[in-house]
Amino acid sequence: MEKGHTIPIYGGQGYISLVDYHGDDLRAVNAARVSFGRESQELDERDIKLLGYLAEHGHTSPFEHSSVTLKAKVPLFIARQWMRHRTLSYNEISRRYTAENIEFWYPEKLRAQAPVNRQASVDTLEDEIQEHAARIYAEAVEHADLAYQLLLQIGVCREHARAVLPAALFTEFYLSGNLLNLLRFVTIRTHEGAQAEMVEAAQAVKVVLAALFPHTVELWNK
Amino acid sequence: MEKGHTIPIYGGQGYISLVDYHGDDLRAVNAARVSFGRESQELDERDIKLLGYLAEHGHTSPFEHSSVTLKAKVPLFIARQWMRHRTLSYNEISRRYTAENIEFWYPEKLRAQAPVNRQASVDTLEDEIQEHAARIYAEAVEHADLAYQLLLQIGVCREHARAVLPAALFTEFYLSGNLLNLLRFVTIRTHEGAQAEMVEAAQAVKVVLAALFPHTVELWNK
Amino acid sequence: MEKGHTIPIYGGQGYISLVDYHGDDLRAVNAARVSFGRESQELDERDIKLLGYLAEHGHTSPFEHSSVTLKAKVPLFIARQWMRHRTLSYNEISRRYTAENIEFWYPEKLRAQAPVNRQASVDTLEDEIQEHAARIYAEAVEHADLAYQLLLQIGVCREHARAVLPAALFTEFYLSGNLLNLLRFVTIRTHEGAQAEMVEAAQAVKVVLAALFPHTVELWNK
Amino acid sequence: MEKGHTIPIYGGQGYISLVDYHGDDLRAVNAARVSFGRESQELDERDIKLLGYLAEHGHTSPFEHSSVTLKAKVPLFIARQWMRHRTLSYNEISRRYTAENIEFWYPEKLRAQAPVNRQASVDTLEDEIQEHAARIYAEAVEHADLAYQLLLQIGVCREHARAVLPAALFTEFYLSGNLLNLLRFVTIRTHEGAQAEMVEAAQAVKVVLAALFPHTVELWNK
Repeated sequence: MEKGHTIPIYGGQGYISLVDYHGDDLRAVNAARVSFGRESQELDERDIKLLGYLAEHGHTSPFEHSSVTLKAKVPLFIARQWMRHRTLSYNEISRRYTAENIEFWYPEKLRAQAPVNRQASVDTLEDEIQEHAARIYAEAVEHADLAYQLLLQIGVCREHARAVLPAALFTEFYLSGNLLNLLRFVTIRTHEGAQAEMVEAAQAVKVVLAALFPHTVELWNK
Repeated sequence: MEKGHTIPIYGGQGYISLVDYHGDDLRAVNAARVSFGRESQELDERDIKLLGYLAEHGHTSPFEHSSVTLKAKVPLFIARQWMRHRTLSYNEISRRYTAENIEFWYPEKLRAQAPVNRQASVDTLEDEIQEHAARIYAEAVEHADLAYQLLLQIGVCREHARAVLPAALFTEFYLSGNLLNLLRFVTIRTHEGAQAEMVEAAQAVKVVLAALFPHTVELWNK
Repeated sequence: MEKGHTIPIYGGQGYISLVDYHGDDLRAVNAARVSFGRESQELDERDIKLLGYLAEHGHTSPFEHSSVTLKAKVPLFIARQWMRHRTLSYNEISRRYTAENIEFWYPEKLRAQAPVNRQASVDTLEDEIQEHAARIYAEAVEHADLAYQLLLQIGVCREHARAVLPAALFTEFYLSGNLLNLLRFVTIRTHEGAQAEMVEAAQAVKVVLAALFPHTVELWNK
Repeated sequence: MEKGHTIPIYGGQGYISLVDYHGDDLRAVNAARVSFGRESQELDERDIKLLGYLAEHGHTSPFEHSSVTLKAKVPLFIARQWMRHRTLSYNEISRRYTAENIEFWYPEKLRAQAPVNRQASVDTLEDEIQEHAARIYAEAVEHADLAYQLLLQIGVCREHARAVLPAALFTEFYLSGNLLNLLRFVTIRTHEGAQAEMVEAAQAVKVVLAALFPHTVELWNK
């Protein structure tokens, strides 16, 4: 995968983009082999077996010598979940600085509350309700946007005006981490308990990692 | 300061509360003195001098052996700034779990955009505009709240419905960290460049720390 | 367990000592319950069930709101393994500062190299060899000690002289961490792959944690 | 600087080597500009000014999106200081695994204890004492090496035998970190209070960083 490669998410409303990286499957092998003073030049079958062993037995430190920088565009409620991962590094657009490029996430299909699991959602909203809900949603977002613009026009500061902007607001951020921390992010955020919109973003990150570290991603959590 | 002590902020809309802690000014002294194998039983003048020396010269590790747990209630846009401090630990109310206790932050006084500093605000909004802005703000927040309740009523899942809730929404979280990391949080977030609402919360944290570690807080950043 | 309680290790040559702490089993329960805005006053059966659920499903953040400070005396080769745990905080005696209290770890019984596992050891050294090995070991340590004292006597700086001191040298350090990070330390360092001397120290830490957080320690890694 | 470039230290006894990296001066600029939604293609004067502003005012997060992997060979007493930097990632040769390539650091010139500063050393050892000290040092190291080899020969496990090896033992490790954390390492470990052998290693790291991020290194701590 080339630097700059971009994976659209949310039907093209958001994206995950590869900014830069270093390392490959072989890096973890050689970092592990430093324990007994050895090094490989090319990845062979024995090295892949070692990768699997490291992943299976939780010998995680060798995966910290590869690093990836991404750029992401996701709504605020997803960014908030993402940034709970404190081993990753972030730089995000600030609504104290700029009022430009205000965009909102619109659900392609609204989901119903899960009847048992208090945290989850299910795909059972009838078409009529779907339509009704979409209208309420859109009106709410549009009202917020309008109120925001009005507040700015009459001179209210950006850092106050933004308080009316909804969690649906798209945000953009740089994001960096070593391979281990990104693998852990992917594992947790592609889990069945995660919100579908979080899973979609995390799956796109996994696609990037799988292109750069194919054997590691295949063997991880196997 | 007793455990459970609560400091109201935002005119009583939010709070910072002391849950628990361990350590005192003497702890850092003794952690530092382990370098040369000594220990004090009670804080004396020489110990306080050592505290000042540690703070001034960036010998920060001795301040990591005291720890504080707080509870905070602040609006989302402040929580987002707070949680960029990745050395602290957080557990926060989740709007995937519960739709109860929805409350919004209302500014006591809206501020104007600073004319030069793109990130800052100033206290120059005329009374008339102030009133007008407060009305726009309140209507936006109330519309969002109504839309949220409607979406829930017709069966939309909480994790989708919350997307219409504004950044003004109050959130609550547990927060823990060692003294060093809390001192750094206070230093950065009481800085003149910080948003006034962030400064108010950070000042309340500082009041807690000053009650528990009076000499350290006095000597820090002196 | 009272503050100051000390657990001897290595036949009394070393120790693990409880300096201070805050939190209990209930703390993690309440930190978890903040997700849906609830709180318990006393630990009941439902709370213990929740603890087990959190531990089993890797919901680890609630365990970050309890904190423990310990003091440890272990040989350098164990301290080196310990300090690879980067989420814990340390302050250690420095041999640049002081040349006092030089003590060395003596194995109660030397072990043989494991025939297959390159990293492990087994209890198969014959008595005669045991005795011979103990003599070589003691002479090496004593020669190093003597050389160290001589270098200091003729004016060589401590930071150079210490280069002749062996990994058997005892060191002392303050050590702090939240409950999650200490539980992870215990899990990894009481594992069968760990060196016996590391396991002995980690087991003593586990005894401390089990006294302070009995249900959590019982349910962790179950 | 090409990947694989190696900088000898300690008169060629040790080294710092560049394994891999990503990022450049422009990366921090663009990560910072994401705050207001802008991006540069090439580093110009305004960008360099921004770098200086970020460095001077402690806006450190943009420097976390560049990453460097190094390999180092230093004696144990220096590795111990190095690994106190907990934001960096390490994989080190293990003396539980291998008894090969045992090498010891020999001081080119032994230093005297500083008369006032308890932690420091000075260059005032007379030639005669220098010579005497070098002999004591060499004999101690050789005795330790011999004892180590003997213990292994009679079947003692590596993890026990290594306890007689001195702090002068050379170790090798992989080391990774983002640019911010490496800059902080360099700042602290090239400080006048640091041991000369630590400074020499940190200066070599600085040479690598200055080749990859010339403007950032020049503007940092200015």
